[in-house]
Amino acid sequence: MIEQVFSEAVTKPKGNQAQLKITILGGGSFGTAMANMAARNGCDTTLWIRSADVATEITQTRINKKYLPDFELDSALKISASLEESVLGCDLILVAIPSHSFRAILQQIKPFMTAQAVISLTKGIEPNSFCFMSEIIQQELPQVPYGVVSGPNLAKEIVAGMPTGTVVASHSDLVRHAVQTSLHSAVFRVFASDDIYGVELGGALKNIYAIAMGMAAAYKIGENTRSMILTRALAEMSRFAVKLGANPLTFLGLSGVGDLFATCNSALSRNYQIGFALGKGQSLDEAIKALGQTAEGINTVIQVRKRALELDVYMPITNALYEVIFEQAPALNMALSLMKNGHRSDVEFVLPHQHNLLSK
Amino acid sequence: MIEQVFSEAVTKPKGNQAQLKITILGGGSFGTAMANMAARNGCDTTLWIRSADVATEITQTRINKKYLPDFELDSALKISASLEESVLGCDLILVAIPSHSFRAILQQIKPFMTAQAVISLTKGIEPNSFCFMSEIIQQELPQVPYGVVSGPNLAKEIVAGMPTGTVVASHSDLVRHAVQTSLHSAVFRVFASDDIYGVELGGALKNIYAIAMGMAAAYKIGENTRSMILTRALAEMSRFAVKLGANPLTFLGLSGVGDLFATCNSALSRNYQIGFALGKGQSLDEAIKALGQTAEGINTVIQVRKRALELDVYMPITNALYEVIFEQAPALNMALSLMKNGHRSDVEFVLPHQHNLLSK
Repeated sequence: MIEQVFSEAVTKPKGNQAQLKITILGGGSFGTAMANMAARNGCDTTLWIRSADVATEITQTRINKKYLPDFELDSALKISASLEESVLGCDLILVAIPSHSFRAILQQIKPFMTAQAVISLTKGIEPNSFCFMSEIIQQELPQVPYGVVSGPNLAKEIVAGMPTGTVVASHSDLVRHAVQTSLHSAVFRVFASDDIYGVELGGALKNIYAIAMGMAAAYKIGENTRSMILTRALAEMSRFAVKLGANPLTFLGLSGVGDLFATCNSALSRNYQIGFALGKGQSLDEAIKALGQTAEGINTVIQVRKRALELDVYMPITNALYEVIFEQAPALNMALSLMKNGHRSDVEFVLPHQHNLLSK
Repeated sequence: MIEQVFSEAVTKPKGNQAQLKITILGGGSFGTAMANMAARNGCDTTLWIRSADVATEITQTRINKKYLPDFELDSALKISASLEESVLGCDLILVAIPSHSFRAILQQIKPFMTAQAVISLTKGIEPNSFCFMSEIIQQELPQVPYGVVSGPNLAKEIVAGMPTGTVVASHSDLVRHAVQTSLHSAVFRVFASDDIYGVELGGALKNIYAIAMGMAAAYKIGENTRSMILTRALAEMSRFAVKLGANPLTFLGLSGVGDLFATCNSALSRNYQIGFALGKGQSLDEAIKALGQTAEGINTVIQVRKRALELDVYMPITNALYEVIFEQAPALNMALSLMKNGHRSDVEFVLPHQHNLLSK
């Protein structure tokens, strides 16, 4: 219903935007949705897809059968399987490539880089290195202006015209401006931030707490407990992020509590379902077998716990999850981790624990 | 299930707390739940109830038939209908009286005040005056140490033993300490803050956004839109709160996003249902008639909009709701209010709007 009402605004005459030249790397659901948004907005837009066969198929059918099978792509959107052709001479490169291949794709486009800006659309942490996507960009393409986009953004809802908000974070006014101009529409609003790590951490850490929420749901918890898990999750996410130089206030926004809220409410997500199975007393192996696949959050728990130990950050939910998943602790330990540890502050950036008479 | 596991901890030997003398004014569901918690914790606890008949009945039956009919109260909890007897000589007075009668009860206990501290358990704003409960305490009982308690705390879930977190806010270490000591248990955790207005504003404003969420639900929105409403609600709540001297970081905690999350997820709340009916195109009169009663949030919209105009705070959701409810604007304006106004910051306390190249 809401799509119809917004439709006039969405199909506004093209060409009223500066004719930015945009390339999106990666034809998954989110990359495809963003490419379509930029094309609709009148940008000269190319979607790069690794497989030449798939690129040809999408060019002919205007359908990304694998990732957005029910949606017809804008006729102006170009599809290419040539990295050189896609990247050379464009203004903005939006990278929607999984975290484990993110570095490799930047290495491949390096020869074609002149004055393009590079924007990560990828949520997550590079396996083993614990690098954020913004760090990989800085390492592989130093001197290139860069930014990141993150938020509660299910691609299927975006292409269905559901009102959606996201965040672009960059230290560069011009990069933020260009991303807002190319992606902003009547149903897709792009908010700005300059806290790159803060914005990235929201999208990277949230899967941990989707597992925790699923695990708690196995105990038939109510709204009081769900709300407490959400806020204690925010407490440890922001504590961790501040240690890495982020601003805790970023977690009040779309990439923080916005994405956490969407993820924790999604009973169909793999992370939530793995958590639920663990809460019912299954082992990780049993849970993965029943689900048919693993969940991203499991790897995030391992990586974040390791990094938190190194940085000496107190993360009771992440620790309790680790113990339940890998050290045969009972699932109830997750709940107990929320309730123990005496009298603490609600938000430690408001009232530091050491100023609280009873903190331990 | 979780209740059983926690039950041993809950029924721990009494008397291990300092024998604080606690009085709770008001026998609604939350006041009764907190009185029972304090009594279980070994505090010398009295619950004051206005009606002598009801006080006698509860003393005999150990059941608060009207508000918590399925729950047997602790045998140590005293019930009294005498204000003088309840208040004289106690250490802490917890006030769980509706906002419109809050001032009157403080005036009644004034003659019996010696060195007691006064803690508000009441969420809301005094009609007409726009006073918070903490302000009423300061006005009516100057010099008295005071604090407030707020959070996502459904009384029925608390007495059922569901793990619950709440916040006590006070400038006094001793007050925070006393409240934590008297109420803290294995299933009820009391976090601390010194941002009194911030903690009160969460509980007072959230009902506005429950109406907005209900209204949006009438358009079959998805998770992207729900998350955007939640974060834009936090943006305007914190913007308003900061103007009144609160800390925006408080909204990361239980009394802010915690209570908002619980309220916005509660499709059975009156605020949500009124919003849903408005979203379906009903007038306020029709919605109230269908529901059989009005909702708190309607009054909050009126009061907060007025105050926001006086303080010059940008609150697009509150304004759009006001126009839908009282000025015959179409319900869809609420959605449009989220999407318009150009390129703004995600969290303005991170990236101020005026530093954002495209802000308008």
